[in-house]
Amino acid sequence: MEEGLLVVVSGPSGCGKGTICKELLRRNKDIIISISATTRKPRNGEVEGVNYFFIDKEQFDAMVQNDEFIEYANVHGNFYGTPKKFVLDKLKNGESILFEIDVQGAIQIKKMYPKAVLIFIAPPSMEELKNRIVGRGTESKSDIEKRYENAFKELEYIKEYEYMVINDEVMNAVEKIESIIMAEKCKTIRQKELIKKILS
Amino acid sequence: MEEGLLVVVSGPSGCGKGTICKELLRRNKDIIISISATTRKPRNGEVEGVNYFFIDKEQFDAMVQNDEFIEYANVHGNFYGTPKKFVLDKLKNGESILFEIDVQGAIQIKKMYPKAVLIFIAPPSMEELKNRIVGRGTESKSDIEKRYENAFKELEYIKEYEYMVINDEVMNAVEKIESIIMAEKCKTIRQKELIKKILS
Repeated sequence: MEEGLLVVVSGPSGCGKGTICKELLRRNKDIIISISATTRKPRNGEVEGVNYFFIDKEQFDAMVQNDEFIEYANVHGNFYGTPKKFVLDKLKNGESILFEIDVQGAIQIKKMYPKAVLIFIAPPSMEELKNRIVGRGTESKSDIEKRYENAFKELEYIKEYEYMVINDEVMNAVEKIESIIMAEKCKTIRQKELIKKILS
Repeated sequence: MEEGLLVVVSGPSGCGKGTICKELLRRNKDIIISISATTRKPRNGEVEGVNYFFIDKEQFDAMVQNDEFIEYANVHGNFYGTPKKFVLDKLKNGESILFEIDVQGAIQIKKMYPKAVLIFIAPPSMEELKNRIVGRGTESKSDIEKRYENAFKELEYIKEYEYMVINDEVMNAVEKIESIIMAEKCKTIRQKELIKKILS
């Protein structure tokens, strides 16, 4: 069986990657979303093994020590990480896994698993990105400035990605990602077993 | 303006690349088919500059001498070649060009223009390929054997291609090629000007 695809959808804060991934998963029931382990306490309604694997700091540190994460990060004092085994088992089983993750995480994943497909979601313009960050209206002015600066820094990483999709319209972006997934599955390097079968 | 895509649809005799390309062009009015120059005499209904550029052997030889072909070949005593200028002008103008061509020609194009997107059309199985070649019913038994042997040899070139599409159903294959074209346009290396604009 051919290995599944590891698809990373990433981009700066405010680029709309969350909305895009939600729609992508709704339309493609065969794509699995990656589940992170976290030391954060479950929020209301969050389910173990669906939203996160909830673990304590001691367990988390042990997993780091044993190199059990594809990537991990400390976000505002809580730790988040992607367990390697969960991902590799699914891929080996021919299933495709989607990661919705920040730019730093995406680059960690690519290092650990070079066959990963990295898709950068970009805003139509930096002005539009600012409007979106401001539009959330949940943050103070200094937070907004900081987010905007970070977003600008993250755009510098576009070149590390094989693909860039402009989020002008959610459905446009989703269809482009679907095309990228289809095209990647058509790559000869991902169809080695099929080619062997044809040639036999 | 970003350069257009040079898309090569290729594969062994009997793989169905002709039918696929016809349907692809019907559905995608923005894709141009590459027009070859040939020393062959026009057949009934063939139009200069639409089906072929009809030239004589002397003109053909001069173009070979001046390195004006992307690829050329001698097919049963008639010469066929793809004029470089026609193709490069269209690409520069942001237009995408489709080549329906044999395996040897595809590999020549890739050498001359490494950004070309090579798609190999494969039969679902070698048995199916044989059925299709036999099914044409226009050839002698020895011709059929020869075509089948050639097709088998050409399959060995699959690995030179970035993509392989199985022609199980024409529409499936066409949709996969459309996805490949869309995905290639999303590659960061093909969106350098857009990236510059976003970052500015």
